[in-house]
Amino acid sequence: MTSYKLTYFDIKGLGEPIRMLLSILGKDFEDNRIPMASWSSRKSEIKWGRVPVLEIDGKEMYQSQAIMRYLAKQAKLAGDNDWEAYEIDSAAGTIADLISLYIPIWTLDGKSKEEFKQKLLNEYIPSFMKNWNEQAENSGFLANGKLSWADLMLYGFLETLEGKLETEIVNEYPNLKLGTEKLRATPGIKEWLAKRPNTPW
Amino acid sequence: MTSYKLTYFDIKGLGEPIRMLLSILGKDFEDNRIPMASWSSRKSEIKWGRVPVLEIDGKEMYQSQAIMRYLAKQAKLAGDNDWEAYEIDSAAGTIADLISLYIPIWTLDGKSKEEFKQKLLNEYIPSFMKNWNEQAENSGFLANGKLSWADLMLYGFLETLEGKLETEIVNEYPNLKLGTEKLRATPGIKEWLAKRPNTPW
Repeated sequence: MTSYKLTYFDIKGLGEPIRMLLSILGKDFEDNRIPMASWSSRKSEIKWGRVPVLEIDGKEMYQSQAIMRYLAKQAKLAGDNDWEAYEIDSAAGTIADLISLYIPIWTLDGKSKEEFKQKLLNEYIPSFMKNWNEQAENSGFLANGKLSWADLMLYGFLETLEGKLETEIVNEYPNLKLGTEKLRATPGIKEWLAKRPNTPW
Repeated sequence: MTSYKLTYFDIKGLGEPIRMLLSILGKDFEDNRIPMASWSSRKSEIKWGRVPVLEIDGKEMYQSQAIMRYLAKQAKLAGDNDWEAYEIDSAAGTIADLISLYIPIWTLDGKSKEEFKQKLLNEYIPSFMKNWNEQAENSGFLANGKLSWADLMLYGFLETLEGKLETEIVNEYPNLKLGTEKLRATPGIKEWLAKRPNTPW
């Protein structure tokens, strides 16, 4: 039997869409979670110094979006033709852009953290969420009017973002809220959400 | 006839692989270049506030990697199966990681710019180049032993990096140097390189 091992932080973030995809595919996997606090000492053990890393029968895969896209093709969540695949890739790229903007939240503290948090909440996040909410009109999903791995990526990130910022975000955007509800009820994802470890973000 | 318009800065960077792909595909395109100096006033005109944007018959495409992957599928430079496509996507993701690390070079100046440049040259760049050079053993290419859009992405970025840092980088890495030479001789790319505008980076 093929073995799967996912190494990521003990958070949702960019690991969660991969965990959801593996669950959709019915694959048992080792959910190897590195505590954030020990990352600086563990980083050098990992090629490229980044997680997530997915091992399939011991063969290491790098780069979250590349891993998601690969698994999503097996799960039929990567588009039915080249244009649909582009729409999903493009949506995923915009999510990665907002992720790169929010990263400093993990290292700032005190007044500078609070100022950065306000910039995120009042400027960065609304500008992206507004566009995504428009894209998700009718279906609730970011691309092609149907569930794709980009929705899983957004969901994992927003869960972490809401936990980290201690605020609700998605509920202000009705189309994205609808998509979230449909995603949570999807076979494979539903079971994963019921059994996954409880983490604050 | 289908019309193509690429909007990007007046540099190579993430625009150049798209220009090369269009040239490989034999597509004439409008090469719309925004001077860096006018970006701050132009940014708000563009959805997501980012370039490159490719318009195909007026329909806008966003996100450099999504655009490259879409064109590369047409040019048969995106892998012959899902695993090959993953290998290319993963390589492209690592290039994007180094790009995100080097971005501050455009806004720093004086002593802090010089310090950052040293960190790039002595730490960030060698760590990525060493891994890429290993991946490119024998063929000179990053993935699957053959030319892919990830090689085009690396080539465009390294041209900009070498120009901006005023130093040679790729020549120290023999496998990548070989790949660069093969890439420059590829039909479609060769013609583009001969006729493209002369920019310092």
